[in-house]
Amino acid sequence: MRQVMTKTILMQRPYNFSAGPATMPQEVLAEAASEMLDWHGSGMSVMEMSHRGKEFISIYEQAQADIRELLAIPDHFKILFMQGGGLAENALVPLNISCSGTVDFVVTGSWSKKSLEEARKYCSVNVAANNESDGHTSLPDPQTWKISRGASYLHLCSNETIHGVEWHELPDLKAMGYDNPLVIDFSSHAASRVLDWNRVGLAFAGAQKNLGPAGLTLVVVREDLLDRALPICPSAFNYKIVAGNQSMFNTPPTYAIYMAGLVLQWLKRQGGIAAMESRNKVKAALLYDAIDKSQFYQNKVADNCRSRMNVPFFLRNESLNEAFLAGAQRHGLLQLKGHKSVGGMRASIYNAMPTEGVQALVDYMLEFQKTRA
Amino acid sequence: MRQVMTKTILMQRPYNFSAGPATMPQEVLAEAASEMLDWHGSGMSVMEMSHRGKEFISIYEQAQADIRELLAIPDHFKILFMQGGGLAENALVPLNISCSGTVDFVVTGSWSKKSLEEARKYCSVNVAANNESDGHTSLPDPQTWKISRGASYLHLCSNETIHGVEWHELPDLKAMGYDNPLVIDFSSHAASRVLDWNRVGLAFAGAQKNLGPAGLTLVVVREDLLDRALPICPSAFNYKIVAGNQSMFNTPPTYAIYMAGLVLQWLKRQGGIAAMESRNKVKAALLYDAIDKSQFYQNKVADNCRSRMNVPFFLRNESLNEAFLAGAQRHGLLQLKGHKSVGGMRASIYNAMPTEGVQALVDYMLEFQKTRA
Repeated sequence: MRQVMTKTILMQRPYNFSAGPATMPQEVLAEAASEMLDWHGSGMSVMEMSHRGKEFISIYEQAQADIRELLAIPDHFKILFMQGGGLAENALVPLNISCSGTVDFVVTGSWSKKSLEEARKYCSVNVAANNESDGHTSLPDPQTWKISRGASYLHLCSNETIHGVEWHELPDLKAMGYDNPLVIDFSSHAASRVLDWNRVGLAFAGAQKNLGPAGLTLVVVREDLLDRALPICPSAFNYKIVAGNQSMFNTPPTYAIYMAGLVLQWLKRQGGIAAMESRNKVKAALLYDAIDKSQFYQNKVADNCRSRMNVPFFLRNESLNEAFLAGAQRHGLLQLKGHKSVGGMRASIYNAMPTEGVQALVDYMLEFQKTRA
Repeated sequence: MRQVMTKTILMQRPYNFSAGPATMPQEVLAEAASEMLDWHGSGMSVMEMSHRGKEFISIYEQAQADIRELLAIPDHFKILFMQGGGLAENALVPLNISCSGTVDFVVTGSWSKKSLEEARKYCSVNVAANNESDGHTSLPDPQTWKISRGASYLHLCSNETIHGVEWHELPDLKAMGYDNPLVIDFSSHAASRVLDWNRVGLAFAGAQKNLGPAGLTLVVVREDLLDRALPICPSAFNYKIVAGNQSMFNTPPTYAIYMAGLVLQWLKRQGGIAAMESRNKVKAALLYDAIDKSQFYQNKVADNCRSRMNVPFFLRNESLNEAFLAGAQRHGLLQLKGHKSVGGMRASIYNAMPTEGVQALVDYMLEFQKTRA
């Protein structure tokens, strides 16, 4: 009886292109709904469980194991479940690991710029590279970076959600002759692609794009970086304390962890991260091709760094923006309006967006173009 | 069809006495389950909504209005939705409002002690009073407190979740001749009783007791305290920035806010906070009377400050603890084990615990006593 109900709802659902909080896998939502009043015969909703009880501990441990397995995170990294999102990490990373007093930043868009501004409170910041001169549409060549020897770390945003610029391959600081750990804000493409952890010291991500609901932050940190916190770092956000207490020094966002756990199990059923990466490449190509072949739409980002998760695009005739969005809504294509700082449109096509959703968007774009061109 | 399913599950649910995350109103969980895949015909789960979209903004605004109305919060207080729980606030309160450099603390149990230890990082702390000598079972008389003139604030925990000590009436610092704002950690009795905001400068609460799921923190702060943050306060946790951005400087924990909103609407249907307070008094009296009349169970807290939310109690014969807990589990009475720092049992009887649940616990206690005394 329950299944019938669920199916009926599923068939009515539109495609949601929100940049985050973002669309979730439908079967994950259905699973959560069916377990809302009674998780696995416990008589409790996951929301009602003590975080110290055996039921929630089992959910936590499964989520930890699944994320380590799926993202192929080596054992010398700790996986932390925190709160506050990427914007909080902009302060928490320097509070935790900027002990030398100097930090390098590579600025490629709004998010890395925000990170840099916040870090100024805690350390001396150096702009190693900046792509502002081309409107954040290309990636500065690592060979040209001005890296500070002895800096505590180098920070970059590996996928700029607003500008749609993605590092398809992370720079290899070691090969460039630097021991500085690389810190990446991978909020909007975590779990969308295979990642080379040999190049990473610390990675953080708000969960609300590819991993689950807002309110959960994933921090993956190399163990040797855990001993560096400034004395003013709040205990609840001190990576060493969080790691030493299995992310339960303070009460963790239990339901968000549970939802992320369901998403991780869904990712496994999809074939894991390599399979998702292949699918994400296909989805992104479908959309970029449609844009590039058209004289009606436009994407300004250089070919080699176009984000496979966040595709900003513009109607060349911007007076049609409102009509485009209204028509999209009628076609069941939601939340396509671009970020206010860049305008235009943005389609976020995270893991949970099926190829059919991207195809539906492309079909609508062609149809709209025909009637208005 | 959906209603039948829900009802079947409801009838099977046990009573959950967890101290937090804690039991939720059953009809709230059922409502959340039924809307999980499609909120009000939007085609989206609340989890999938952009926090900047009109759908979520309406949820946020309703929750803000309901909490202000229910808790009778005057207009010169801001209501902030934050993350990190009470333990994070132990750092964030001094980071935001300890500008004078000195802060007073009244220690009445584990939570106020933790707050004091964390504040030491940011300011000079003064212990105005401490009930440690009687094992945190009574409240120090405000007339005996050693208050620092000119301190940034005086902190107390208005309900000690672990020791079960509650301020039934808040001290009136102004009447005592002090302008120092009173800061209260009211995590475990927020929304359980009427509160005199004239006596309060700032109140904070982790939501996971009376308000909703873990991962949401409520901060209610008098507007004149918003301008005091230390320069090292992280922007995402700066009260003025959070207030100025309607709690959306960073992505808020949207689903937790939605769930809290459903709880607030449920509270209104129950008759509001004064009605809840009456019911909570009845529930607490039922349990304390059963304990006091027995030679088998014991509660050590002084009569005038027994918590109406968290009732720690002990079997005089502690060798029966495991049998008591196992029997309780069989009777559908969950999560009664006391906090590890005090031992024994603890029944948390928050708003969402019906009188029938407390009666079922009392019945079981008497039955257990008969078979073992």
